[in-house]
Amino acid sequence: MSLILTFLGKSGAARSKIAIATAKLLATQGKRVLLAGHAEPTLPMLLGTAIAPDPQEIAPNLQAVQFQSSVLLERNWDEAKKLEAQYLRTPIFKEVYGQELVVLPGMDSALALNAIREYDASGQYDAIIYDGTGDSLTLRMLAIPDSLGWYVRRFRQLFVNSDLGKTISESPLIQPLITSFFNVNWTENNFAQPTNQVNNFLEKGKAALADPHRLAAFLVTTPDPLEVANARYLWGSSQQIGLTVGGVILLGAEQDPNLSEEFNPLTISVVPDVTKGEWQPMIDALPNFVQQASQAPKPMEIDVHNRQVRLFLPGFDKKQVKLTQYGPEVTVEAGDHRRNIFLPPALSGKPVAGAKFQNNYLIISF
Amino acid sequence: MSLILTFLGKSGAARSKIAIATAKLLATQGKRVLLAGHAEPTLPMLLGTAIAPDPQEIAPNLQAVQFQSSVLLERNWDEAKKLEAQYLRTPIFKEVYGQELVVLPGMDSALALNAIREYDASGQYDAIIYDGTGDSLTLRMLAIPDSLGWYVRRFRQLFVNSDLGKTISESPLIQPLITSFFNVNWTENNFAQPTNQVNNFLEKGKAALADPHRLAAFLVTTPDPLEVANARYLWGSSQQIGLTVGGVILLGAEQDPNLSEEFNPLTISVVPDVTKGEWQPMIDALPNFVQQASQAPKPMEIDVHNRQVRLFLPGFDKKQVKLTQYGPEVTVEAGDHRRNIFLPPALSGKPVAGAKFQNNYLIISF
Repeated sequence: MSLILTFLGKSGAARSKIAIATAKLLATQGKRVLLAGHAEPTLPMLLGTAIAPDPQEIAPNLQAVQFQSSVLLERNWDEAKKLEAQYLRTPIFKEVYGQELVVLPGMDSALALNAIREYDASGQYDAIIYDGTGDSLTLRMLAIPDSLGWYVRRFRQLFVNSDLGKTISESPLIQPLITSFFNVNWTENNFAQPTNQVNNFLEKGKAALADPHRLAAFLVTTPDPLEVANARYLWGSSQQIGLTVGGVILLGAEQDPNLSEEFNPLTISVVPDVTKGEWQPMIDALPNFVQQASQAPKPMEIDVHNRQVRLFLPGFDKKQVKLTQYGPEVTVEAGDHRRNIFLPPALSGKPVAGAKFQNNYLIISF
Repeated sequence: MSLILTFLGKSGAARSKIAIATAKLLATQGKRVLLAGHAEPTLPMLLGTAIAPDPQEIAPNLQAVQFQSSVLLERNWDEAKKLEAQYLRTPIFKEVYGQELVVLPGMDSALALNAIREYDASGQYDAIIYDGTGDSLTLRMLAIPDSLGWYVRRFRQLFVNSDLGKTISESPLIQPLITSFFNVNWTENNFAQPTNQVNNFLEKGKAALADPHRLAAFLVTTPDPLEVANARYLWGSSQQIGLTVGGVILLGAEQDPNLSEEFNPLTISVVPDVTKGEWQPMIDALPNFVQQASQAPKPMEIDVHNRQVRLFLPGFDKKQVKLTQYGPEVTVEAGDHRRNIFLPPALSGKPVAGAKFQNNYLIISF
């Protein structure tokens, strides 16, 4: 298991520089580091070396990898074929070659998250520094386990209760038909096997996201007001997916523009830019990531005793936060991210009794 | 039908400024303009006004809209329910509320593209200026009709020929079962109705993408070598999805850094930055978008007579371009974008006889 760090902010060049400096810092501390980016020229140019779809050592303890979606899709296609063959008696995927598959929106995110998951599980790295898009898309990506988990639990039950679901599980006419096409006995377990596999995978992802010692993001900004506003927006949005934001890294400030009000209670580390290929001053000014992440406010606290849920939502005002309870769960909307709160049994299914927004916290009472 | 313009490049702030200036320019020329962005603070801050999920007038002839995926998903959910009810006798979507739906990666792109399609079809706008992510993700989004089209034509045939597909269309036992759950008569038309609806939608999207008078992108860069390299990379990648890149807009250059070699044969327009809220100098320096787009190199030319396909692939060298023919179509890979070339009947299914890469063109002979 690795420590996974990523950076959020408007300036891609600044984020990539901080990612490189962080990777260098942790590598010189003796940690085995993987620096991972997407297919575009920024990282290779800043590193001064090409990076490939497989990790390669670029300094002692430091490996770099470029996630190329076409390559990752090709590799995962074999897995998809195996899965299909496992559940379908006469698979059709075998006729399609990994080399011809086209990447659709969303696949980049799913493939990159899966690659991070695999490198994390490999035990080969103490730290993975992910230089992603650093915006809303990175949040959507890290939220995949939680979002998919919601779709699975919400739609699975509806399907099982539907006419189609009931007929499949009860009809003596449909059972033999299904077994002739699928390798799954749907009477016995009602998809239990495939959905349990999915759920197990999603639960692991959710656990990693919830643990600031496993995964944390840091904001990267310059003193430019546009960038500061974007960093604040991403800070609030991160809470909506349950991602811990550990601190702020301020780059290229001649003097401290005093942003502590904007990012309170986070620590702001003022970091000099890289000049003439000199990384050391930047590296020396970086924060203690693990310490800051463990001290940062938790995105959500559930207090069963007082029947309260406290959501940390900085950067938003009361009007920008929406609380609804249409479905079986409580939905919170802010920053174009929607969160369905999966509550412990003691609070689950209860109607909301009250809600107030104060000191950057949305406090919901049941 | 509108003219749709978008901007590609590493600096989001620069792209948003150019998008605003372009919208202002076209509006003062008497065109009815819609400026569309995503949910983040850049556009509202630069415009000095909040923008909402529905278009609102911010200047004469100029409306602005913010695509909020949660809102768009909620609105489209009713359509999805109608579709489900049309094809499924006992729909289950009706139990799920649009207000609780969570956005998954890829949905932002699909929802934004669909919103652009609807505004385009509304006849209310002569021009739509889309201030998107300006990177690989925008290309994935604009490529959706082509990419999905490939999946439909490749997998549909495989399914129809599969045991499952054959049994469904031939078995007198399965037919009544299917008709009891679905409103579709699968004997008669083998999914013809739903897939034709999809194909029609995709064909319209592909036609718009192929026509530089309907849709074009412009590169936005500063003289920073990192940004120049990214702009070149996006230029080449755009060709892979068949998107016309009309020209280059160079922002914040004290003097012309002479980038004509890098972007030959595109025209480079040197544009001053906005200072103290003064947009006019930037607006005055913008290019004639329609003219430049119509003169730009076409991403693909098919010469049936000489049995040749010519692909424009600037910014890549020979080693970065991969040509394969695993499936029934010819696949070209470059810049983490894969393109399956759908050839006219005269060339379709023929093996590649030769390929050479010269003067930024990949020339494939059959």
